[in-house]
Amino acid sequence: MSLLVVGSIALDSVETPFGRTENALGGSAVFFAAAASLLNPVQVVGVVGRDYPMQDLGRLAARGIDLRGVTVADGESFRWAGKYGFDLQTRETLETRLGVFANFKPVIAEPFRDASYVFLGNIDPELQLQVLEQVRRPRLVACDTMNYWIQGKRTALLALLERVDVLLLNDSEVRELSGDWHLHRAARWVLEHGPKYVVVKKGEHGAVLVEKDRIFYVPAFPLDDVFDPTGAGDAFAGGFMGHLARSGDLSDANLRVAMVYGSTMGSFAVERFSIGRFEEITPEDVAARVRAHRDLVHFELGPGDAGRG
Amino acid sequence: MSLLVVGSIALDSVETPFGRTENALGGSAVFFAAAASLLNPVQVVGVVGRDYPMQDLGRLAARGIDLRGVTVADGESFRWAGKYGFDLQTRETLETRLGVFANFKPVIAEPFRDASYVFLGNIDPELQLQVLEQVRRPRLVACDTMNYWIQGKRTALLALLERVDVLLLNDSEVRELSGDWHLHRAARWVLEHGPKYVVVKKGEHGAVLVEKDRIFYVPAFPLDDVFDPTGAGDAFAGGFMGHLARSGDLSDANLRVAMVYGSTMGSFAVERFSIGRFEEITPEDVAARVRAHRDLVHFELGPGDAGRG
Repeated sequence: MSLLVVGSIALDSVETPFGRTENALGGSAVFFAAAASLLNPVQVVGVVGRDYPMQDLGRLAARGIDLRGVTVADGESFRWAGKYGFDLQTRETLETRLGVFANFKPVIAEPFRDASYVFLGNIDPELQLQVLEQVRRPRLVACDTMNYWIQGKRTALLALLERVDVLLLNDSEVRELSGDWHLHRAARWVLEHGPKYVVVKKGEHGAVLVEKDRIFYVPAFPLDDVFDPTGAGDAFAGGFMGHLARSGDLSDANLRVAMVYGSTMGSFAVERFSIGRFEEITPEDVAARVRAHRDLVHFELGPGDAGRG
Repeated sequence: MSLLVVGSIALDSVETPFGRTENALGGSAVFFAAAASLLNPVQVVGVVGRDYPMQDLGRLAARGIDLRGVTVADGESFRWAGKYGFDLQTRETLETRLGVFANFKPVIAEPFRDASYVFLGNIDPELQLQVLEQVRRPRLVACDTMNYWIQGKRTALLALLERVDVLLLNDSEVRELSGDWHLHRAARWVLEHGPKYVVVKKGEHGAVLVEKDRIFYVPAFPLDDVFDPTGAGDAFAGGFMGHLARSGDLSDANLRVAMVYGSTMGSFAVERFSIGRFEEITPEDVAARVRAHRDLVHFELGPGDAGRG
């Protein structure tokens, strides 16, 4: 089924304890699409400057990513530069140059307005709302956000939440949004403001799917080497939405499987700079890691586990 | 099957953001036994001073805890006082008075020497080794340790590890012991030094069972209110060993179930001060939470999850 993402398309310069990269493909829409396209075709809406390496972006077109919604505008592309500490948890932003992204007004072209699955990457909630005005009747809308919008555009963000099925965000963001340090209470606060599901991403500590009466937990896939955490959250969203769009199944049981695809894609994202790992792997690699996730948490209770023997 | 624990029996004074308690039952052997006895009888070896509230400890005897191995010595009982920060993660030790515990020499009385399952609580590794000299042929030996012994008694600790089947410790301890910040590499370092299994406890982030070629992850059970984290690790060990002793099944599959019992008991421990929660609950409450753990992580893959649809 059709899957649409609206988000940033950036050039990332990243320094980790293990190396550095400059002006590599980045941004929420790029990480999302690179991951999701291993499962389902993706339509991308975003903006780049005339300096963007379109031939690199073009490589994505070959694998089912429809770039007709990417506008090339006069000016510089969005650039982000950051540096990670040795634990790969702490991140310092060295530079953010919005360029043409500062004036981004998402226009959803006619062929994309019938998208069944819509992911609103982390952009201004007013723009996220504008996207929802243009799509006709999506089966599922998911969105991401960040502390910058939680603080600066709270009213628009709350209006957006009323129209969103799934909110994906990280642990510090859900705490800030709700004003509650307790993660599960914080997630339930979100459920009272619109979304039916909240996905709380906790980095190396996995992710949690919270719905009204139920919680599902998926651990981060154990990796021997994490190379660059940039984009893991958007790749998670790509796996989550890609699986739902491919299967067309919105049952609670299948949302759990979508979480596993999300965690799987997040784990691939961090193994290389930029979207490098997604250019190497196949759908079979994804399926193998999804199955390995099952082995990581699976256990069987016996008849003796019903009480004292 | 018979289950023996050797460890501290203390009086804990604990302050949390939610309240305080003074001179409450505590210590590794007490938390272990309170949890394990919901699954299997437990034999306790330890020492207390003449000031210990034996009538309180006696309540444990009624539920299958054999206290014949507890020596009453001249002097004061082991006292510990600590204070938790608002996040319940950071803990400040306000006072440690070893009392009679300073001269503790574990003597395993004849009826306990045939114990099939042995847990060596966090005491001096030289004393842990002395216990192993006295027991005849246990089916499984598990032990805990802490940074104090990792730093001060490394040689004895490494000699102990060669004779231990399962090492249970927390994330910072396994990093310090191995000298490797990467948790899974650190756990594999331990596997090269004797134990067949390592259980790494990560507090609110769950616990991991690491064996040679396989990892099993169990999340912490989501609680609305954590009251006092003291003793959670020992209660985890009690659930883990209690399940193994009850079932008598040392298969890899059953060690996974033991992890779930461990996590379950850890979650009960933190709901009250001291062992209060274990005096309220029944084996049926334990079984219910074990089943809830399954719902927390369980997912079913479909035929479409073998590759791109």
